[in-house]
Amino acid sequence: MSTDSITLNAPLDMHLHLRQGKMLERVAAASAAHFAGAVIMPNLVPPVDSLDALLRYKDEVLAAIGASTFIPYMTLFFRDYSEAELQAAKPHIIGIKLYPAGVTTNSEAGTRSIDDAKPTFARMEALGIPLLVHGETSGFVLDREREFVGIYDELAREFPKLKIIMEHITTADAVAFLDTHPNVFATITVHHLLITLDDVAGGLLQPHLFCKPIAKRPEDRRALLDAALNAHPKVMFGSDSAPHPRHAKEACGCAAGVFSAPMALACLTELFDYYDALDNLQAFISGNAQRIYKLTPVAKHVTLNRQPWTVPTYLDEVTDSIDAVRLFKAADVLSWQVSSLH
Amino acid sequence: MSTDSITLNAPLDMHLHLRQGKMLERVAAASAAHFAGAVIMPNLVPPVDSLDALLRYKDEVLAAIGASTFIPYMTLFFRDYSEAELQAAKPHIIGIKLYPAGVTTNSEAGTRSIDDAKPTFARMEALGIPLLVHGETSGFVLDREREFVGIYDELAREFPKLKIIMEHITTADAVAFLDTHPNVFATITVHHLLITLDDVAGGLLQPHLFCKPIAKRPEDRRALLDAALNAHPKVMFGSDSAPHPRHAKEACGCAAGVFSAPMALACLTELFDYYDALDNLQAFISGNAQRIYKLTPVAKHVTLNRQPWTVPTYLDEVTDSIDAVRLFKAADVLSWQVSSLH
Repeated sequence: MSTDSITLNAPLDMHLHLRQGKMLERVAAASAAHFAGAVIMPNLVPPVDSLDALLRYKDEVLAAIGASTFIPYMTLFFRDYSEAELQAAKPHIIGIKLYPAGVTTNSEAGTRSIDDAKPTFARMEALGIPLLVHGETSGFVLDREREFVGIYDELAREFPKLKIIMEHITTADAVAFLDTHPNVFATITVHHLLITLDDVAGGLLQPHLFCKPIAKRPEDRRALLDAALNAHPKVMFGSDSAPHPRHAKEACGCAAGVFSAPMALACLTELFDYYDALDNLQAFISGNAQRIYKLTPVAKHVTLNRQPWTVPTYLDEVTDSIDAVRLFKAADVLSWQVSSLH
Repeated sequence: MSTDSITLNAPLDMHLHLRQGKMLERVAAASAAHFAGAVIMPNLVPPVDSLDALLRYKDEVLAAIGASTFIPYMTLFFRDYSEAELQAAKPHIIGIKLYPAGVTTNSEAGTRSIDDAKPTFARMEALGIPLLVHGETSGFVLDREREFVGIYDELAREFPKLKIIMEHITTADAVAFLDTHPNVFATITVHHLLITLDDVAGGLLQPHLFCKPIAKRPEDRRALLDAALNAHPKVMFGSDSAPHPRHAKEACGCAAGVFSAPMALACLTELFDYYDALDNLQAFISGNAQRIYKLTPVAKHVTLNRQPWTVPTYLDEVTDSIDAVRLFKAADVLSWQVSSLH
């Protein structure tokens, strides 16, 4: 049965980069318009690695969101935290995000030794604070996530009560690993459901599709699609939407990140509709996250209609500036669009 | 025994893009300075696919080379050629270059059906005209060369006297295939001996290292290195040096090509020295090509000394223009440099 309208209850983006300052002010509205809340990444410069910094950043985020109904679920940047620090932070955070040093944008301050981090993992486990992980080793670019699965395995065994979120998974290996431990979960982006390395580098090289982890093989994409479309109970949507200005993307040395916040819901609806899986979209976009994180989001209903629209090329329609932010799916026609919020 | 100087006899670049017009005038000197000759690619717009066009292009190339001792070995762009056309062209060409349609820069006019091309292959075989091939399918970007090996196999069996050159090979599969048929040979670039996909996309995305075929895995690079350093008798150096202006590389949609002509010899000497294989450099850089193609190049000796120098960032030291051409190894210090020509 074909439907021409779907209403999503409290869509959540469980992995979002909102940046700071002027960029935050430019991009916050796109997420706040379509989502009831999002998990806000802490990889600023300097990283958000104290409660003071987190509360300051949260105020900045809330100011940028304005009157929208949207909850920013804050995260701390992983470092060694004392029990007192964790206890003080706990009411203000949804989890702590671990970046291995150097694997992505602003991760230079990240973790250099998993073994050294274990005492903090033990304290997080005891306090019930989830661990969100950018799971890539420093190996060959296509093998990094697969190699990191061994580390996930070690952590999941050693800290069986620690909730571990494999962020933005991109490989069939990570999907398969989901079912090996009860305390392992994952987020999946919309772009990794739609593109492979072929889209990035198969024709002309596309810097605006370059992200970390890099898009992988067709069989990896199929495994991700399978998990998402079936709303595998351990996967959640997390856009990893990550805006960069053109001068950082169309450059000799292009920054990693795809800016997908404005069309993520429309893309997902089109995709789930295409595969006749719209019944599972609510779980992927919100239900699973509510159960996994024990969240009760604010009331917010987002209706999408089957009605073609053209994705703008740039944020704010700014086209000629080196500061312009190019959108994922720029100038593409999508068959679903967000029509109302209530 | 360490040596501080090496003299190469008639270095040959068996795969070179010299372009046309102003770009040809800008880049010709770099190849003409260090090489005794080069195989000139015909993928212009429109392609060089008639004897008239070839002779006109050769005149343009010779004018750009000026007084340098340098032989441009011309190639035709593959299409169906009659026996009369092939006989007329034969004295003027070293071979015919086949591009599957759409696989690289200016290949839109390329071959769509290998079966339809077979009558021309048969005529080339009878006349002793080599077939140079950009061997990639239209499959997933990392699989294209491996998938094309099946086509090489078919052609090598069906046309056992046709000399088939697998151009710019990038995979361990292609290296392994070299030994399966006596009529199959290969060129290898300097950049594929030095980089993997990690260098292109492992950190920031590097558009100036983006080329077709794309750089592959570490084990592929090791197989290429092994073939080159041992001067496998069926491999030849071919730079595939392919200049593009910055506006075509640092862009939303970056053209494929690495510009390596100016430092190729220095890079190769450094590499062969590093692996204690300088004794094999002459065969890789000239001897194998002379034997495979039955060439007698012009007398030209190029001496390199162990003396550090810094590779310029841009051709002609032009730095601020969107027309600037960025060099491979830009701003890197190499330990060998070309010191004299005679």
